[in-house]
Amino acid sequence: MAAGGFMASGVECGVRSSGSLDLGILYSEAPCVSAAVFTRNVLKGAPLTVTGDAVTNGDVRAVVVNSGNANAATGERGVEDARRMQKIAADPLGVSASEVAVASTGVIGEHLPMARVEAGINEAAKNLGSKGESFAEAILTTDTRTKEAAIRVEIGGKEVIVGGTAKGSGMIHPNMGTMLAFLTTDAKVEKECLQKTLASATERTFNRVTVDGDTSPSDMAVFMANGVAGNKEITMDHAEFPIFAEAVEEVARSLAKDIARDGEGATKLIAVSVAGAKDEASAARLAKSIVGSNLVKAAAFGEDANWGRALNAMGCSGVGFDPAGVCISFGEVEVFKDGEPAPHDIERANAALSGDEVVISVRMGEGDASAEAWGCDLTYGYVEINGSYRT
Amino acid sequence: MAAGGFMASGVECGVRSSGSLDLGILYSEAPCVSAAVFTRNVLKGAPLTVTGDAVTNGDVRAVVVNSGNANAATGERGVEDARRMQKIAADPLGVSASEVAVASTGVIGEHLPMARVEAGINEAAKNLGSKGESFAEAILTTDTRTKEAAIRVEIGGKEVIVGGTAKGSGMIHPNMGTMLAFLTTDAKVEKECLQKTLASATERTFNRVTVDGDTSPSDMAVFMANGVAGNKEITMDHAEFPIFAEAVEEVARSLAKDIARDGEGATKLIAVSVAGAKDEASAARLAKSIVGSNLVKAAAFGEDANWGRALNAMGCSGVGFDPAGVCISFGEVEVFKDGEPAPHDIERANAALSGDEVVISVRMGEGDASAEAWGCDLTYGYVEINGSYRT
Repeated sequence: MAAGGFMASGVECGVRSSGSLDLGILYSEAPCVSAAVFTRNVLKGAPLTVTGDAVTNGDVRAVVVNSGNANAATGERGVEDARRMQKIAADPLGVSASEVAVASTGVIGEHLPMARVEAGINEAAKNLGSKGESFAEAILTTDTRTKEAAIRVEIGGKEVIVGGTAKGSGMIHPNMGTMLAFLTTDAKVEKECLQKTLASATERTFNRVTVDGDTSPSDMAVFMANGVAGNKEITMDHAEFPIFAEAVEEVARSLAKDIARDGEGATKLIAVSVAGAKDEASAARLAKSIVGSNLVKAAAFGEDANWGRALNAMGCSGVGFDPAGVCISFGEVEVFKDGEPAPHDIERANAALSGDEVVISVRMGEGDASAEAWGCDLTYGYVEINGSYRT
Repeated sequence: MAAGGFMASGVECGVRSSGSLDLGILYSEAPCVSAAVFTRNVLKGAPLTVTGDAVTNGDVRAVVVNSGNANAATGERGVEDARRMQKIAADPLGVSASEVAVASTGVIGEHLPMARVEAGINEAAKNLGSKGESFAEAILTTDTRTKEAAIRVEIGGKEVIVGGTAKGSGMIHPNMGTMLAFLTTDAKVEKECLQKTLASATERTFNRVTVDGDTSPSDMAVFMANGVAGNKEITMDHAEFPIFAEAVEEVARSLAKDIARDGEGATKLIAVSVAGAKDEASAARLAKSIVGSNLVKAAAFGEDANWGRALNAMGCSGVGFDPAGVCISFGEVEVFKDGEPAPHDIERANAALSGDEVVISVRMGEGDASAEAWGCDLTYGYVEINGSYRT
């Protein structure tokens, strides 16, 4: 299932390791309203400057992405290369350069091999079709699987589809859409509404994922709405705006969890929920602190219900709270209750960590707010991948 | 070499794994002026409450420490147990309970086996002598070696010794003396001056170490000065105060680097220096962000001079700066210069990571401030230790 009026493709042009698709184009037949969010890393990859300009000063209807090279920390030449990617793609797509968003992901600090990139863009433009899977594959780096999601909702009697594709496996930490994500919809949506919907969904989904505490300089999420569904324009005041916003959040959440599950070297998804916090920001910070703790992550890998590490991660999250009001469960097993160790069967608690999805639930006595965060276990595989990524 | 008038011991009482010393006492024959700093984790181990009271309301001249159990997240009973440790030690030492500091380190969330602890304290008190090495061993957990340092300086014509012992290997992250450290001096020092000297040295040494980004609830550094050297009391205005402060900082730095070097699973010390920052706090934050990055740590393990990861960690440190003014070297090899990749021999750069000490130097164009931080590589050993610490 894909949003109407969008086409995609993915080809191999030799930027990433041989045998891998590494250049993709996503294209809308109709002009789009567009929105984007970017990394909060001080270091920003060159494509972010170029795509930021395009979405701020106008609207994009196509995205060209390469994997294998992030075009980040590449100075002035990097920005020129990103602008050239726009121009190269514009011609065969029959759009203006400013209608093309650019994204790059991979090694930091090397210049793009532009001859290969140019050949790849031309080939990908020729091959556009119902090839979302090829596009999803072309944007991967250390990811082990593609990440796609789509949902259908009815808005004003019209069927509308929200779709999305993302990549992300390492250098993943919540501080703005920490990976690449491309969302599409055939709904007609007002620009400001589209931006706010994307920002809000990002805050609650992509920004709730952490794999290793490092925020990439390449992160971006781009959302294009082409209106081919024929609905009355969605604005913040539209009666059915909440349905649209929930659909977008649902797609983004699905992609966010896919990213966490596919964290470098991961064998398990860790899902942490915090309830009873004083506000959503505190709940999110506590949940992210737990899911980001190397010690919690290693304990999940070792299938050890070491709840002290989860409590400790809360304690150093920067959020103030009264430990006496805290309860913690691993799966269904309560291990800490009202500030005291809760008598429990350790074997049963450890068993709650033995599957491919570990659920840690925290209740506090501070208020009514809650939040979820997602991450993965810390494994020998993570060390292996990152001890030998470049060489 | 040890500060005059201090005695120590370490015994096995069965709290930690069998065959390991796990209870130690450090004791001054003369009354002391004392100072202490504690973890900033919201969760504080019971001993911190008790020791904090003792150092705030009076002065301690003895420290009793157990390893194997942190007595943290143990509720009211935990605090009662810590107070009992004070009382048990006071009797054989011939001091009042309020002159005894208590520290515990190890697993979080289990009550102390008090019968064993009591027997251990009595035995340790009987065995006091020139046994700093036994004390240093008794306070270890996953550490692979003891950590001691001492320095001799002359203050007002009197020879003065500053000594120290520390432990720390996992759950190590800069947010207050992130481990246990016990400093001693035979100098006579005014209380306020001692506290300020300890706080300042902690900020520049212990707080600049990170092993895994998790701040322990048990961290504390206690500093006792018994004045047996016979010097004129050291105050902040004393002409030779800087000599004393530098000696304390030197001892603390040596212990801090020992902790980083002995990080769980570590094969290498990583030392990061940042110069040209706008202030020391920014320099420290940038240095700690680099040394705390899992990706930098894994690259050090893999002996891959992947400077993009160091630059990236700076970018997500929360400190604003202009990447165009940044230069980065691995050992002697400059890999990034004035915001652009610097042409360099990759083999030579990688070779700079092959020893047991990796030096990463950053220069920025923001100002004149500098700072150092220390950490270790991320290895299979770290995952192994923390995937199976408890079970």
